[in-house]
Amino acid sequence: MTFGAAETAAMRRALELAADPAVPLGPNPRVGSVLLAADGSVVAEGFHRGAGTAHAEADALSRAGEAARGTTAVVTLEPCNHTGRTGPCAQALIRAGVRRVVFAQSDPNPLASGGAETLRAAGIEVAQGLLADEARALNRAWLHGVASGRPLVTWKFAGSLDGRSAAADGTSQWITSAAARRDTHRLRAEADVMLVGTGTVLADDPRLTVRGDDGETIARQPLRVVMGQRAVPTGARVLDDAAETLLLRTREPREALAELFERGRRHVFLEGGPTLAAAFLRAGVVDEIVAYVAPVLLGAGRNAVGDLGITAIDGALRPTVTDARLVEGVDGEPANVRFTLALSS
Amino acid sequence: MTFGAAETAAMRRALELAADPAVPLGPNPRVGSVLLAADGSVVAEGFHRGAGTAHAEADALSRAGEAARGTTAVVTLEPCNHTGRTGPCAQALIRAGVRRVVFAQSDPNPLASGGAETLRAAGIEVAQGLLADEARALNRAWLHGVASGRPLVTWKFAGSLDGRSAAADGTSQWITSAAARRDTHRLRAEADVMLVGTGTVLADDPRLTVRGDDGETIARQPLRVVMGQRAVPTGARVLDDAAETLLLRTREPREALAELFERGRRHVFLEGGPTLAAAFLRAGVVDEIVAYVAPVLLGAGRNAVGDLGITAIDGALRPTVTDARLVEGVDGEPANVRFTLALSS
Repeated sequence: MTFGAAETAAMRRALELAADPAVPLGPNPRVGSVLLAADGSVVAEGFHRGAGTAHAEADALSRAGEAARGTTAVVTLEPCNHTGRTGPCAQALIRAGVRRVVFAQSDPNPLASGGAETLRAAGIEVAQGLLADEARALNRAWLHGVASGRPLVTWKFAGSLDGRSAAADGTSQWITSAAARRDTHRLRAEADVMLVGTGTVLADDPRLTVRGDDGETIARQPLRVVMGQRAVPTGARVLDDAAETLLLRTREPREALAELFERGRRHVFLEGGPTLAAAFLRAGVVDEIVAYVAPVLLGAGRNAVGDLGITAIDGALRPTVTDARLVEGVDGEPANVRFTLALSS
Repeated sequence: MTFGAAETAAMRRALELAADPAVPLGPNPRVGSVLLAADGSVVAEGFHRGAGTAHAEADALSRAGEAARGTTAVVTLEPCNHTGRTGPCAQALIRAGVRRVVFAQSDPNPLASGGAETLRAAGIEVAQGLLADEARALNRAWLHGVASGRPLVTWKFAGSLDGRSAAADGTSQWITSAAARRDTHRLRAEADVMLVGTGTVLADDPRLTVRGDDGETIARQPLRVVMGQRAVPTGARVLDDAAETLLLRTREPREALAELFERGRRHVFLEGGPTLAAAFLRAGVVDEIVAYVAPVLLGAGRNAVGDLGITAIDGALRPTVTDARLVEGVDGEPANVRFTLALSS
């Protein structure tokens, strides 16, 4: 299909709107929409602000009012066809008299798909696939949930060259560079759950909040989740009021993930210790690994990952490398390495 | 100092000649020389072919014969001033009637230095420092030996993301990619000793030869050295005729290095197991680390490095990163990472 330059620019803008950092992460896809006049000028913009609020198309249509008639609606996701809490967008677009609809990605949700067909049947021109990869990347956690019925799990691994996450006496601050830790916070900000085990809370007393590049606590905090059978001390930092916290009295990765999915969570950032990480890996529910390796040697200490039940080299876990890069140090700190790895589960 | 374009080109050529891969590595510096006529054309070239053979300047002078008179001698190292097995080069240059001498690097050897002064006293124009960094890099192992009285030690580290060099059952072929292993062979080729402990010979039966990119055994093989108290089995591959082998009945790193230095060796490539590596690190005689990390997880198995006596994070070994890069995989293999690290000892 061919798309005009104005449509491509509008789709980029719609993707930007969809990614608005004020939108709470959760069970809904992130969607943006731009209405274009025949001359390519923008008539109205809209985006979805989270469960229970207007869909992106409805938001844009309500801002445009009568001016929506004859426009091209550029949307990052196929307009929905079902009546949820907000009414089907395909019908709203038909009623508003749009002339053409351009969307990036088909709706993979069987409950909501079919919008393109409904629009076409009403005589509206429909074109799809514009910046589809970008749209998929934006909603990869949501897409994972639709396909698998559980949240996407990203395991953050950080270790020395010799695979240690702490020295023999348990001290671990810091193995990786400040730049690598800032990089981690940027990735944490994309998740809606920060997950550790009770063991990590007892050993390290982490805050599990997401900080910006200047160290400030950002507005949209993921849910902090502590799983395990041991009690969390009342004074633990993870119980402060910087973000919501959920205690899950289970050691079973799949059980914890089912509960989190049920609660509308779609992307778990796993920051637990070696035992919890090994449990998730063995259960086959780690989807991606973000691994930081620092040019540091310890020779002994806590292993960054526990026993995986692998005995021979043929059984080694060899995730697919989706990205490998140096994270340059600042203020004299050395470069660290970051691998981003995908596991098929 | 200023140098002409012809002199710079000649120095590059002299560095190339010095690095000739047919020259045996050993106790002598690698040196190249080019004689230039007044119009910048090359009159003769020479290089040093190893202990007991003519020095680079003498080699070039003898090829030039009478044509040496009035030339500029471009040399990678300050012409020597002492009478070793071959007579002082400073005197030879004076006798041959060269007009000007350009050299890259001063001779740091107190026995041989002073050549520049001798030349100037004889009325010859002398300029130094042209491509000095390149000249130093070429002879870094030799320079290290002059300064420290022991060979340069490069420890090769190769491990999984979680710091393992073998799986639980001892299998280890392969953790790193074929591209990373080829890269290792290129680095091995620059050393004049390949060193392991008896434990590695008993466990892995390595050949310890240097292979080229196509897997062929290259002509200039480092000396293979096995150190330790245990007996090496007569059928061990390290005893085959692909290269020379030396068995050192010691477990003391400094003792082994003194013996190797005495035998004219200047660059040890340490490929031993975790125990030997830890012994060298603890003795403070590892000068650089070449660390390959592969995106592989084992969860258990042989640690890539043994106990270093480090108990707290403040004691972590933090070598200086001189280079950090991705070694891209070929034929579908993943990228590995290579850190080059320097330790001050």
